[in-house]
Amino acid sequence: MCQLLGMNCNVPTDIVFSFEGFRRRGGETDEHADGWGIAFFEDSGCRVFLDYLPSSISPVADLVKNYPIQSRNVIAHIRKATQGAVSLANTHPFQRELWGRYWLFAHNGNLLERPDLQGGRFTPVGTTDSEHAFCALLNRLERRFQGTPQLRELHSELAAFAQAQSRLGTFNFLLSDGRALFAHCSTDLYYIVRESPFSTAHLADADVSIDFAQLTTPRDRVAVIATRPLTDNETWTQMHAGELLCFVDGVPLPN
Amino acid sequence: MCQLLGMNCNVPTDIVFSFEGFRRRGGETDEHADGWGIAFFEDSGCRVFLDYLPSSISPVADLVKNYPIQSRNVIAHIRKATQGAVSLANTHPFQRELWGRYWLFAHNGNLLERPDLQGGRFTPVGTTDSEHAFCALLNRLERRFQGTPQLRELHSELAAFAQAQSRLGTFNFLLSDGRALFAHCSTDLYYIVRESPFSTAHLADADVSIDFAQLTTPRDRVAVIATRPLTDNETWTQMHAGELLCFVDGVPLPN
Repeated sequence: MCQLLGMNCNVPTDIVFSFEGFRRRGGETDEHADGWGIAFFEDSGCRVFLDYLPSSISPVADLVKNYPIQSRNVIAHIRKATQGAVSLANTHPFQRELWGRYWLFAHNGNLLERPDLQGGRFTPVGTTDSEHAFCALLNRLERRFQGTPQLRELHSELAAFAQAQSRLGTFNFLLSDGRALFAHCSTDLYYIVRESPFSTAHLADADVSIDFAQLTTPRDRVAVIATRPLTDNETWTQMHAGELLCFVDGVPLPN
Repeated sequence: MCQLLGMNCNVPTDIVFSFEGFRRRGGETDEHADGWGIAFFEDSGCRVFLDYLPSSISPVADLVKNYPIQSRNVIAHIRKATQGAVSLANTHPFQRELWGRYWLFAHNGNLLERPDLQGGRFTPVGTTDSEHAFCALLNRLERRFQGTPQLRELHSELAAFAQAQSRLGTFNFLLSDGRALFAHCSTDLYYIVRESPFSTAHLADADVSIDFAQLTTPRDRVAVIATRPLTDNETWTQMHAGELLCFVDGVPLPN
């Protein structure tokens, strides 16, 4: 199994605080040491930082910690290999372009069967069940829609896909096309929405606190999604099995 | 116009020395300060580091300088914007997946017309002529071949494409699918093949020397390709207008 971290905000925000705790789960506070990655949308562009070293000691993770990249949609992943060797090609998040838009995907779980990719244009480069499922999803979206769908239509299609995949195994995932962050819970996923009045948060994986009131404006709103809560003095909402949320502007859209 | 840097080797090699000189052209020894990027193939996987800050001062460039990533195919680019704003979406190298393989592309030049993308599946995310041409190229390859072609067939198709594009403007480019590094010269491109017996090289953009004899084995071979020679005490080969070379194992294949 792996660890997921996502962030969705109404204004570009850095993820340095959350990442500081999260990265320690890659070899320090937890055993997930088979590589890691983080992807940031910045307007329509995105950048993906990957490393096969454990995130707790990776020089790329040091960069991410020290370079506060501002983004409205972030997806990070720490890998504990189940299917596929430890290699860059098997490191999440995965990225593809569809309809002139980048799509990013990271998965926590293990799929016992792989969906058919025949006839679709998206093909895995690595050997993970996760990238395979991502390609199957994009092939499905491309068959279903002529161009970028509205978020509500996309939500419905993703829900149907997630339900089908969940029959093949554990399928917690984060997906973003830059407009929204979708989070699907199969077994383990929590989220928190931080908004005014902001208070002080303390990491669960390191003795580090931050007073968000000092760093925010009253209109800022940030949702953080993670496999396990990242802080130990805040109330995180546990998602239930089969739930798919679409985060926009730092809050899940009503279903 | 922009600056290109490529490296192709017979064994995984780091690009730290060449990059040390190259990055200074982004805002220090030259004026190309509209972002930069570098992409490394590592087996079938690849990672792309992008920044919109000038490469001479970018924290991401500091990471690349201090973290000697071993790769057999590297493409780097420093941008001086001609078409498209300074943004991450317009920062080279561009990456796409085709036939279960990543493709990386960077361009130096300016195209006065844009080829038709109608009916093709690859679509630009940003607004540059460069990404547009890359998408047109991949659409063409996908129409022409059923799966990954042999390098010789790919070379022929790329040459025809490059010739057609060159009628629309300046089209120096580097392209890699992880097996080889293709270099097309429209106006400015030089290369050097370093092999045994190795000697000492001195950068043109910084007072830095390296004795490759201390760092190599007799069977290592490395080709470096750049818009302008990166060292001032070695003999670089100038490519001629219209020339397309396919570098494999650190040397251009005979045409």
